[in-house]
Amino acid sequence: MRYGKIPDESIRRLPIYLRSLLLSEQGTQNISSRKLAELTHLNPNKIRKDFSYFGAFGTPGVGYNVAELVKQIRAILKLGPVRKAALVGVGKLGSALLGYPGFRMYGFEIAAVFDNDPKKIGKKIGNIAVENISGLRSMRKRKISLAIITTPAQAAQKIADMLVDKGVNGILNFAPRYLKVPKKVKVITIDIAMDLARMPYYLPAS
Amino acid sequence: MRYGKIPDESIRRLPIYLRSLLLSEQGTQNISSRKLAELTHLNPNKIRKDFSYFGAFGTPGVGYNVAELVKQIRAILKLGPVRKAALVGVGKLGSALLGYPGFRMYGFEIAAVFDNDPKKIGKKIGNIAVENISGLRSMRKRKISLAIITTPAQAAQKIADMLVDKGVNGILNFAPRYLKVPKKVKVITIDIAMDLARMPYYLPAS
Repeated sequence: MRYGKIPDESIRRLPIYLRSLLLSEQGTQNISSRKLAELTHLNPNKIRKDFSYFGAFGTPGVGYNVAELVKQIRAILKLGPVRKAALVGVGKLGSALLGYPGFRMYGFEIAAVFDNDPKKIGKKIGNIAVENISGLRSMRKRKISLAIITTPAQAAQKIADMLVDKGVNGILNFAPRYLKVPKKVKVITIDIAMDLARMPYYLPAS
Repeated sequence: MRYGKIPDESIRRLPIYLRSLLLSEQGTQNISSRKLAELTHLNPNKIRKDFSYFGAFGTPGVGYNVAELVKQIRAILKLGPVRKAALVGVGKLGSALLGYPGFRMYGFEIAAVFDNDPKKIGKKIGNIAVENISGLRSMRKRKISLAIITTPAQAAQKIADMLVDKGVNGILNFAPRYLKVPKKVKVITIDIAMDLARMPYYLPAS
């Protein structure tokens, strides 16, 4: 099935719904937008609106079919098959992410790990050996099309260029800078300091 | 000056503008929305709209005064004084965040670090010694009102309860779960897997 254009803000919420649905799936056949609002702490009207974008309208008094919703959200997010990702930059943050259990839930597998530090190359982290950056050239052959950049900011653009050149079309960027990439490549930057920076707005004056 | 209600989505962008403005501030007195759009890779109309919420309208042909914008954004985000934050949970992610240079840019100082692992307590990370969780009781006296939770998911709610009880009113939560807190407390959850999960939507089918 093809879905029309869904606003970015709704796409941002789909993984949140999905996680709650997956956690509540055991035994629950249907779920109301009100119940889902409770689980996700989002507004029930917003939830209904988000779902309406992909033609899920629920049944009055019954709600949404959980299995069907899960299937639809997975399809929209294209989360079906396992997707292989490479991680570049095995510093503290990179190492932390390698141990992060959350990726598997959404079907991601970190299949390769790269660094340019000779002391790190060859070392095993979990069951993956750290490879020299030059190993990036085999990305296409290994069917790795996603990458996570956890290098220092000043190295990130060069690494992004190399990744794009090797066929990567999705980058999760933890380096605190904007990455210039061709239009067909999607970059999501996670800038932790920025998330902290918008917090005081919601707080009483210190 | 008091500012009216600004939409969350605009607040989310203010730190992005701020960073670009701070980086471009040297020598630049004025900046156009178009130039700022280039720097931030955001839409110039959106930028003008965001700024109009707090009464910054710019001068046609001249743009916005950079220093004035920086001042206003800082005021709105309440980023004036240094804010002390505690970090709870010195696992891999917690350690990574302690080394993260981005916090200082927005005026945050990680002033205390807690863990419940006797092997970690007393150890120094940078120039801060890891404290026993029981040290949380002195948060008010030490004027720490922000916290970063980097514990495992199952411990996060209990820690959040303790933090709120000790006067914390802002929590940056890295545990992949929803935290129940009183209304007056602001929680921002950073769920890395969720950010990865919305990426394939933007990619060609694998």
